[in-house]
Amino acid sequence: MKAATYCGNKTFTVDSKPVAALGSGEVQIDVAYCGICGTDLHIYLGHMDQRVGFERTIGHEMSGVISAIGDNVEGLEIGQHIVVRPLDHCGECPACKAGHEHICHNLKFIGIDTEGAFQQKWNVAAHTIHVLPNSLDLSHAALIEPLAVACHDVDRGQVSAGEDVLVIGGGPIGMLIALVARHAGANVTISEINENRLAYAQKLGFETLNPKSDDVAKLVHERTGGKGADVVFEVSGSQPGVDLMTEAAAVRGRIVMVAIHASKPQIDMFKFFWRELELIGARVYLKSDYEQAMTLLAEGVVDCDSFITDIKSLDDIQAAFEALTANPNAMKSMIKITQDA
Amino acid sequence: MKAATYCGNKTFTVDSKPVAALGSGEVQIDVAYCGICGTDLHIYLGHMDQRVGFERTIGHEMSGVISAIGDNVEGLEIGQHIVVRPLDHCGECPACKAGHEHICHNLKFIGIDTEGAFQQKWNVAAHTIHVLPNSLDLSHAALIEPLAVACHDVDRGQVSAGEDVLVIGGGPIGMLIALVARHAGANVTISEINENRLAYAQKLGFETLNPKSDDVAKLVHERTGGKGADVVFEVSGSQPGVDLMTEAAAVRGRIVMVAIHASKPQIDMFKFFWRELELIGARVYLKSDYEQAMTLLAEGVVDCDSFITDIKSLDDIQAAFEALTANPNAMKSMIKITQDA
Repeated sequence: MKAATYCGNKTFTVDSKPVAALGSGEVQIDVAYCGICGTDLHIYLGHMDQRVGFERTIGHEMSGVISAIGDNVEGLEIGQHIVVRPLDHCGECPACKAGHEHICHNLKFIGIDTEGAFQQKWNVAAHTIHVLPNSLDLSHAALIEPLAVACHDVDRGQVSAGEDVLVIGGGPIGMLIALVARHAGANVTISEINENRLAYAQKLGFETLNPKSDDVAKLVHERTGGKGADVVFEVSGSQPGVDLMTEAAAVRGRIVMVAIHASKPQIDMFKFFWRELELIGARVYLKSDYEQAMTLLAEGVVDCDSFITDIKSLDDIQAAFEALTANPNAMKSMIKITQDA
Repeated sequence: MKAATYCGNKTFTVDSKPVAALGSGEVQIDVAYCGICGTDLHIYLGHMDQRVGFERTIGHEMSGVISAIGDNVEGLEIGQHIVVRPLDHCGECPACKAGHEHICHNLKFIGIDTEGAFQQKWNVAAHTIHVLPNSLDLSHAALIEPLAVACHDVDRGQVSAGEDVLVIGGGPIGMLIALVARHAGANVTISEINENRLAYAQKLGFETLNPKSDDVAKLVHERTGGKGADVVFEVSGSQPGVDLMTEAAAVRGRIVMVAIHASKPQIDMFKFFWRELELIGARVYLKSDYEQAMTLLAEGVVDCDSFITDIKSLDDIQAAFEALTANPNAMKSMIKITQDA
């Protein structure tokens, strides 16, 4: 079978590899599609070499079909369409014991810390599997992982119907958050600087603002009768983004920290005191977020055909990463892993 | 009657003034005691001249006795012992309409934005009054305002029995937070750099750490089985304080922002994402916090006699502010306003 390996220096190789032996409690997946996550791009760009090394098959935004079942696996069948929730927790640490297994102190992220889905035959622990309805297109199903991130973010922000929501950053995750928040009944505005992404957001029916030309905080307060945004999602990972999040929030506003800030930005702590703001960290997802994402995708909350910008073959994975680096307009770039999928 | 006036340049004058006419809906208070708040110290040091001006009688941590009752006031009687909840909200803004009157967009803080309690006869709106049991010593009752701040902070942090709490900063508010959190059943550690305050915290039975000599975050994790603090109160207003708050918190830990940070500190946003931390702003108090503070004070949760470091007369208010500036060891300095109180 074929597998792509990240070998450092912005390079993937695609080689034939023996299929790994199936362990107890594992199932083998014929991977159908695997999207390129922002984290995969960070890996490609060399930002995570120490964590990932130079011999790893990465990839986790996948869909596929069960092709073999190991010992001690119950309730799964060959041929089932599935997605994998790529989290491997220890079960022993204080976070696991408190029921927060998705933020386990020793969490292994499957496809980053262990072998991932940019390969044709992938063995995973059975407990990571969610079975899909057969009606779901497998290329669309590969959006369930990032959609589950958005479901978790919106849940952490406790968004409710009629609330005013500001999403700072209209990349793939920001856009999915906007869709999930709108589905929950919120009035959603997207702040983004990329004109192509702004145009896509408008096409999806969202109010948009561009901080390059708009005073976003002022306009958000004006449009909400002086109140401000009930919930703000910081998805930009930038200093202007964290400046805006405190400026735009209503009294008692909830700010969900979705972005990964590699350095420590300056934050207006006075505003947190003065308006009793709340900042809520959000990371990956729970089982329930995956279930919600499957439901929302089946309900058509995401226009998958426009959201998937392009699909390339596994042989062309190098070109796909190069194109994504050159083109920040893309929403989701996807790799078709098995040619008959 | 006598009143102290802040007239700029680290100076109070104490003069005889006519008693103000009592308006409709107001009551007149013979002020008994008024503590010196950290904010009063900021005013004295000139940090708030633009807001306060140079003709204001400040003071709000008070107790007193009703001496006259204006028109259209019901349910109050001359001679009742009282404290004032010094908040004047507009009732019209989005925060008021959402029920968050204590963080009204146009909130006037009585004794900062309007005339305060460092005077013998003080007229206030009847709705600000809380009637005390006569058994409560009036010098002790002047601690109800800062204790209500602590009750609000602990409530915002949702502290529950058995949880591990870290208080960063052991000044008067930090110490009261520690006492209220311990009363709620939490295991409380205080981090403080002032040796005298550390000694006082130890005398009150608290675990203490000194970041000048201790690796506080490491020790908090060690002492909690690797978990970290469930709730952290940032009361220091310093960069090392906000560094510690994210380092010491448990997965899903709640960090309550009590301190007023005049400049924007650098905050570890990655930790908020990685451990799903929450930051919760807390400002002043609700009616219910005042009621809780009165109950806790009556139950003896605060050792008032040791907490009140010194009591000076209104004539000596200048000396009291000078002494407090020179002596960061003091917990609460109090002014006795009416000589027969």
